[in-house]
Amino acid sequence: MQVTTFGEIMLRLTVPGNQKFVQTDWFHANYGGAEANVAVSLALLGDQATFITKLPNNILGDTVIQKLNEFGVDTNRIVRGGKRLGLYFLQPGAGVRSSKVIYDRNDSAFAASKDGDYHWDELLDGTDYFYISGITPALSEELQATLLSAVKFCQDHSIKVIYDANFRGKLWTADEANTFNSKILPFVDICLVNDEDLENAFGLKAFDNRNHQAIHEKDSFKQSLEELTTNYPNIKLVASILRNIYSAQKSDWQAILLTDHKFYESSTYNMQVVPEVAAGDAFGAAIVHGVLNNFKPQFQVDYAIAAATLKLTIPGDFNLSRDSEIRDAMTR
Amino acid sequence: MQVTTFGEIMLRLTVPGNQKFVQTDWFHANYGGAEANVAVSLALLGDQATFITKLPNNILGDTVIQKLNEFGVDTNRIVRGGKRLGLYFLQPGAGVRSSKVIYDRNDSAFAASKDGDYHWDELLDGTDYFYISGITPALSEELQATLLSAVKFCQDHSIKVIYDANFRGKLWTADEANTFNSKILPFVDICLVNDEDLENAFGLKAFDNRNHQAIHEKDSFKQSLEELTTNYPNIKLVASILRNIYSAQKSDWQAILLTDHKFYESSTYNMQVVPEVAAGDAFGAAIVHGVLNNFKPQFQVDYAIAAATLKLTIPGDFNLSRDSEIRDAMTR
Amino acid sequence: MQVTTFGEIMLRLTVPGNQKFVQTDWFHANYGGAEANVAVSLALLGDQATFITKLPNNILGDTVIQKLNEFGVDTNRIVRGGKRLGLYFLQPGAGVRSSKVIYDRNDSAFAASKDGDYHWDELLDGTDYFYISGITPALSEELQATLLSAVKFCQDHSIKVIYDANFRGKLWTADEANTFNSKILPFVDICLVNDEDLENAFGLKAFDNRNHQAIHEKDSFKQSLEELTTNYPNIKLVASILRNIYSAQKSDWQAILLTDHKFYESSTYNMQVVPEVAAGDAFGAAIVHGVLNNFKPQFQVDYAIAAATLKLTIPGDFNLSRDSEIRDAMTR
Amino acid sequence: MQVTTFGEIMLRLTVPGNQKFVQTDWFHANYGGAEANVAVSLALLGDQATFITKLPNNILGDTVIQKLNEFGVDTNRIVRGGKRLGLYFLQPGAGVRSSKVIYDRNDSAFAASKDGDYHWDELLDGTDYFYISGITPALSEELQATLLSAVKFCQDHSIKVIYDANFRGKLWTADEANTFNSKILPFVDICLVNDEDLENAFGLKAFDNRNHQAIHEKDSFKQSLEELTTNYPNIKLVASILRNIYSAQKSDWQAILLTDHKFYESSTYNMQVVPEVAAGDAFGAAIVHGVLNNFKPQFQVDYAIAAATLKLTIPGDFNLSRDSEIRDAMTR
Amino acid sequence: MQVTTFGEIMLRLTVPGNQKFVQTDWFHANYGGAEANVAVSLALLGDQATFITKLPNNILGDTVIQKLNEFGVDTNRIVRGGKRLGLYFLQPGAGVRSSKVIYDRNDSAFAASKDGDYHWDELLDGTDYFYISGITPALSEELQATLLSAVKFCQDHSIKVIYDANFRGKLWTADEANTFNSKILPFVDICLVNDEDLENAFGLKAFDNRNHQAIHEKDSFKQSLEELTTNYPNIKLVASILRNIYSAQKSDWQAILLTDHKFYESSTYNMQVVPEVAAGDAFGAAIVHGVLNNFKPQFQVDYAIAAATLKLTIPGDFNLSRDSEIRDAMTR
Amino acid sequence: MQVTTFGEIMLRLTVPGNQKFVQTDWFHANYGGAEANVAVSLALLGDQATFITKLPNNILGDTVIQKLNEFGVDTNRIVRGGKRLGLYFLQPGAGVRSSKVIYDRNDSAFAASKDGDYHWDELLDGTDYFYISGITPALSEELQATLLSAVKFCQDHSIKVIYDANFRGKLWTADEANTFNSKILPFVDICLVNDEDLENAFGLKAFDNRNHQAIHEKDSFKQSLEELTTNYPNIKLVASILRNIYSAQKSDWQAILLTDHKFYESSTYNMQVVPEVAAGDAFGAAIVHGVLNNFKPQFQVDYAIAAATLKLTIPGDFNLSRDSEIRDAMTR
Repeated sequence: MQVTTFGEIMLRLTVPGNQKFVQTDWFHANYGGAEANVAVSLALLGDQATFITKLPNNILGDTVIQKLNEFGVDTNRIVRGGKRLGLYFLQPGAGVRSSKVIYDRNDSAFAASKDGDYHWDELLDGTDYFYISGITPALSEELQATLLSAVKFCQDHSIKVIYDANFRGKLWTADEANTFNSKILPFVDICLVNDEDLENAFGLKAFDNRNHQAIHEKDSFKQSLEELTTNYPNIKLVASILRNIYSAQKSDWQAILLTDHKFYESSTYNMQVVPEVAAGDAFGAAIVHGVLNNFKPQFQVDYAIAAATLKLTIPGDFNLSRDSEIRDAMTR
Repeated sequence: MQVTTFGEIMLRLTVPGNQKFVQTDWFHANYGGAEANVAVSLALLGDQATFITKLPNNILGDTVIQKLNEFGVDTNRIVRGGKRLGLYFLQPGAGVRSSKVIYDRNDSAFAASKDGDYHWDELLDGTDYFYISGITPALSEELQATLLSAVKFCQDHSIKVIYDANFRGKLWTADEANTFNSKILPFVDICLVNDEDLENAFGLKAFDNRNHQAIHEKDSFKQSLEELTTNYPNIKLVASILRNIYSAQKSDWQAILLTDHKFYESSTYNMQVVPEVAAGDAFGAAIVHGVLNNFKPQFQVDYAIAAATLKLTIPGDFNLSRDSEIRDAMTR
Repeated sequence: MQVTTFGEIMLRLTVPGNQKFVQTDWFHANYGGAEANVAVSLALLGDQATFITKLPNNILGDTVIQKLNEFGVDTNRIVRGGKRLGLYFLQPGAGVRSSKVIYDRNDSAFAASKDGDYHWDELLDGTDYFYISGITPALSEELQATLLSAVKFCQDHSIKVIYDANFRGKLWTADEANTFNSKILPFVDICLVNDEDLENAFGLKAFDNRNHQAIHEKDSFKQSLEELTTNYPNIKLVASILRNIYSAQKSDWQAILLTDHKFYESSTYNMQVVPEVAAGDAFGAAIVHGVLNNFKPQFQVDYAIAAATLKLTIPGDFNLSRDSEIRDAMTR
Repeated sequence: MQVTTFGEIMLRLTVPGNQKFVQTDWFHANYGGAEANVAVSLALLGDQATFITKLPNNILGDTVIQKLNEFGVDTNRIVRGGKRLGLYFLQPGAGVRSSKVIYDRNDSAFAASKDGDYHWDELLDGTDYFYISGITPALSEELQATLLSAVKFCQDHSIKVIYDANFRGKLWTADEANTFNSKILPFVDICLVNDEDLENAFGLKAFDNRNHQAIHEKDSFKQSLEELTTNYPNIKLVASILRNIYSAQKSDWQAILLTDHKFYESSTYNMQVVPEVAAGDAFGAAIVHGVLNNFKPQFQVDYAIAAATLKLTIPGDFNLSRDSEIRDAMTR
Repeated sequence: MQVTTFGEIMLRLTVPGNQKFVQTDWFHANYGGAEANVAVSLALLGDQATFITKLPNNILGDTVIQKLNEFGVDTNRIVRGGKRLGLYFLQPGAGVRSSKVIYDRNDSAFAASKDGDYHWDELLDGTDYFYISGITPALSEELQATLLSAVKFCQDHSIKVIYDANFRGKLWTADEANTFNSKILPFVDICLVNDEDLENAFGLKAFDNRNHQAIHEKDSFKQSLEELTTNYPNIKLVASILRNIYSAQKSDWQAILLTDHKFYESSTYNMQVVPEVAAGDAFGAAIVHGVLNNFKPQFQVDYAIAAATLKLTIPGDFNLSRDSEIRDAMTR
Repeated sequence: MQVTTFGEIMLRLTVPGNQKFVQTDWFHANYGGAEANVAVSLALLGDQATFITKLPNNILGDTVIQKLNEFGVDTNRIVRGGKRLGLYFLQPGAGVRSSKVIYDRNDSAFAASKDGDYHWDELLDGTDYFYISGITPALSEELQATLLSAVKFCQDHSIKVIYDANFRGKLWTADEANTFNSKILPFVDICLVNDEDLENAFGLKAFDNRNHQAIHEKDSFKQSLEELTTNYPNIKLVASILRNIYSAQKSDWQAILLTDHKFYESSTYNMQVVPEVAAGDAFGAAIVHGVLNNFKPQFQVDYAIAAATLKLTIPGDFNLSRDSEIRDAMTR
């Protein structure tokens, strides 16, 4: 079984410690992106994972490829060209202080890429699963068209499509997201969707109040997931993380999985850490890993939430956890 | 409107991490002082701020000036001369371990400065507000005389005086502080006073028990503030931070403001951070900013406590927050 | 009064921050070992402390000696020779992530040392107390024989023996430990024993359930301690730390001391820190310091738990606390 | 006397040590640009210096302004707006290894700025000298037009124009440079020109062979300078640095100044350092400082080469040297 | 064409800066070994490279594999098992101060590996070239037998053997080396041999005096190389680096290549850097790259010396240079 | 044989890298002083060394003592008390840039110490050699008296006096130094004197021209040394380092020793390093070590210059070299 993920990978430049931009002489450099993160997770779990993107033909592009190779991701199908690597600056928040992000991803090789850059017959040759997220269509209309032509190719060639809703309000509006998602959801076999995504990206009301704690209102959330699978019967599996957030370093995490009209709930983790990013990608990868390896649904959702909470403790975008470590975390 | 602050700025040498003196080969260097911190805050908020002190005529003195210039503070009236820059060594505490401070500020250019070093007619020319604190009179009798001659000058030239009580038990006794404060309070228009200052510096009993949690005993504190403004009717505005402290990294923060015989209370912030220093100076600066910009009292006190809690998250002595960041913190 | 401790000291190589092995280009280097830690604590508290071990005749061996000299430990009786310095790699845990240890101590100069390497008549000449732990006999049968010949020497020469049970499940089995301990306990005057040691190392059942919180089940623990002193009436003093552990950075700590058939309990500390290692050694050293200086039992146990909680805040293996700092922590 | 400089300031992200891109997790961050560097130098030398540019309206833009304020540069006339801050990545060379630069400055606020962004009557109000370089016209035709309108404004308002040729082969061709320079040189009063610029930017042949050591072939270089001032008699002063480069860390530096048809040569410095950047800007600033303060030509050229060689030892783009340090370096 | 290299890869722990062991709290961690370095170089140059070794089944073993994957080396044939990863501590020298190495590689998984661990029919399946060095036979007699059985397998299956003499006086004596080399040289097709190796490892006298500068005495060295190929006519190509060493950071480097009875000499590089390690491995890899890609001998030797001098500037054991960078260095 | 050294030890705060004060947020912390450095060297060489000074009764004082203990120096006779630890800030020079020192040692515990602080009968009890330098008398007249009473005590108790001239022009004038030295030299048995000291401190003309290279003018220097021993026949041994300095990182070092009317010259070392400080103290210590161990004069001077050049490569003030390392350096 072979999984291909497709999306943008960027350079993140982070202000260290609790400093502010004006205080620092150093940026911590880190490469990541939702779909690349998933490919790395899968490769470390022993699955065959290919990552497709477009990278500039310079040393930064080469560096990205080496960082992916390190974890065993197949990078041979990455398209080279374009002007620059997308990047963003991050000044993490603390206490009452918000985090600050300065996106500098316009005109990146991927964001400016064209449908014609991707020859799906070659790129997806031999693939069994195609993993994409809602970030890519938010980047350009061209990329929306690209995604739709890709999923059509998948449908024609019996490649299963996995879609992580991943709504990003800074990149497009809820209306734009809804419009696009109504076009792509009919092609999706497995759907990952956060509590925040359901309403913004899919137009389904999940909670009554804006400041909900998701685990407390699990029931209304479940109703929405059922509605989703009723609307799109092609979706065979939906998985979600629900979080109650109490403070910057205190939160509860639970996962829920719907398949064959039945819900499976993971145990709940009380996290007391300043969380690292990309837990959702670790979760998505673990769900896919379960599909590839025929995990039973209950084990699959338990395994995936353990992978997600483990990622909260690991610096960087990639979940560097191996199978034994996830199973160890399941017992704690 | 132009504000002038006057006091000492020192070099702080801090042992990094949780290390002890004997473990470290490195000291983190940082320049700060109550009145300089206020000037920086005001300059960053867009007000015209001048800082006056006496600095040695060496590279460390030059460095202090450049650090202040960075944030837009007017440093042109700083007096140069004297033997050395005051400094102190700090080994921060952790858990049951107390922090350790080694002061090395004797004979500093400022502490040894004389009344004749400061020509108030030139130094305060054009100033509307004069900001001082209870640290300066604790340094020498000469500086007590200097402050008294300065506030008399202010009275004669319609310059408003802002006084932050800032009692430092390591520098003088409560008796000495009371004696001096009874001389200067008749000249004060705006007074900032902590829960710990009221009793030690002003001789007013604020709480019944020594280990009080200030927010819980707000009422007795208010009585003392009223007594203060009754004793010194020249004081038009008093503002205070009240804290309940639960552990090294858990505390509640609320502010209170008394003006025109009426109390205004801010909302309460539950802080879960290892706090950085100088929140009181950030608070004082924000109160002054409100005065300069005609904030309504309720907004003023809400704004000031947000500035203070924001400072708790920022390394160093200076509150690097801009107006938009304080307003953002008010909504969190 | 002179104390001699005997055991292995190793190089610890720690992955910094929350990184994983594959992410780091740097290891933090630190030298420590239970018995060396005790010697350092005692020397810093002003007692005469000698540390005996076997170290390789290379620069790493020299470095260990200099690190011990720094704190005033007498290192003149250390035996030199053997192949290598024992070392281990540590990747600290975080949240649901377990810590990972890779031991690399086989064939170390100490682990491979022979009975004949230690001439107790010379090495213990002038000593009043001999401090050992249950780690040493776990390293080899030869070292078991060495320890037994040493304690017999002590018995013959009126040197008191202090034994810290310190069971290490990675080095030997509970059965092996029980067998050896039944041979050495008849020589022991002062015994330090953790809640986890009692059952594994001494074969005494301390708690009914496996996931006990020790402070909550203090009574059953006390019964076991009484049983220990009944079985081995030569043991004049037993001291233990009891912990309730709520999360990686939240725990309660209390100590208990049994002497003259009477129990003394310390106050309980609520710790909210990511704990540093070797609190048990700090505790043991403080108990011994109390013995050397004729502390009353209640003060002794209060002093020792303060020393232990202080160590939780100090990086490295050595408790760099002096007497005044421990007394200060007792009041917090 | 007041000097205004105009140009782009960028964020430089440098790979630390001798590492390569793929090895580093950290970039050193540094802000600089030829014309900003000159403004900083002048401000530190005590001259009134204003820097004009266009910066994005985000925190990085604010940070740049604070960094300039630190040294006393007037930043009040900086235009805000546009998409992003220009930046570039630098992997320094070593031995036979070339340095690698990845420019990422397209679409920067300055590079994309329009003539209409700059209202010269306001921006140059009160200015006596206007300092520009050949980097700006290389960025866009729009900026060429902007510069020409600016220098016309200067001519009409008796503002002297200082032009540093600063040819950058990565930004435009020699032909393009020659075409533009033939338009701007008639407006220039003071010209700074490197050995590499003369041919590429001004179309004057300075040396016979490509791999010349400039000091050895000073005579042919002088001829070209004379030709320049003959062609453009409006140019009252020309100054140049000549270098013999023997290896990455060994070179000779000499300066030459032509005014009133007479040449002045500085002494020659044998440099044995890995040189920091921006020595040319330090030189240019020192020449301007000499003009502002009526230095005699021989002293002016000696002073300027000392400033340049001093900059070779200072990390970052800004020459943090004060007058006393330059005079000290002149004696070494 | 596919190359397989076989040998040990170790963890190097280096004291940073000019510090001594007793001064440092940090070790820089780096993985490398002659044959692994060659595999990395080849993979980065675009060749198919497989590395075979035996690594312990722990996280350090996993880490080594990921570090090799990063550069595209095929690690699928690495044998897992054994006790520990070999390691060594390095305190670099400076000026008159010698570097200090503490080897701690006894009992490493590779050093203790047995002939039966390596199934050459599987491990070398599909390989065209087999690269080994004189370090491996110095580790144990078992590994000598292993190497001899491997090269016999190569002879039987038309796999070319490349042998880097790499004499290590700390691991075995010249006599032992000569004895073994006389057995393996009849199987070698390509031989890499340093000036220091010829005499110690092959028993051929290369220079008259002990403190020779190799480039100055090139002629006598050439005679020895001719003697080598006369003795072992199976050796079709010999390549060597010759160095004149003037000080810790000043040396001349030249390479020499003998094939078809003809000598080819590279140009000479004057290096003025504190050299990084493993230039010889970079050289060997480049020679092999030339063989794989049919470089003409003169170009091959020029290319290889450029690769070697480039490595002198790159931290760590791996030559991170790509083809374009080597060609660029050839022109400097 | 037991050596006691007496003088001040200070905290040095150094700006890291090539940065300037205004650029750094960190100071490197290091403790050192001429006489303490000598004690450390001797202890590491295996001699019995005691250091006497006066240190403040705070954590910085404790830290100094621990740093000395690390190397085996006897610190039990150090006097405690006084106001503060002396310190100085150092910004190292580079290229044409001078180093900058800001002394902040006034009022230090040692500088302000009184004759009555030192009870020589107790402090020098059991000592065979007393080592002092010309820095101490430069600090105060009180310390001049102290030194004179100490050397008289030595004369009365057959303790040999070693005096390192160590003239410091920032602390006193040449006239003051000459006056004091004429009083103390009659008590000196062994004298260490630099080329710069002879004229300034002893009033003996050593070189004709001011910018001499000392090795080139060895003969005139020898004449002065002879004159010194003629004037003070009590001086049995004089040793000096002579240096030719070519650039910041290039110099020649040679030592000369005069005893029994005969000169011994060491070989000359060509140093190509950025030198660390305190080579002179390493030299002095090695001379004393030779005296204690009856080295022959030629070996003694060779050994001492090797120790000095070794120190040039070791960060910090202490020469961390052991006997074997010095002997190794002698062969390079």
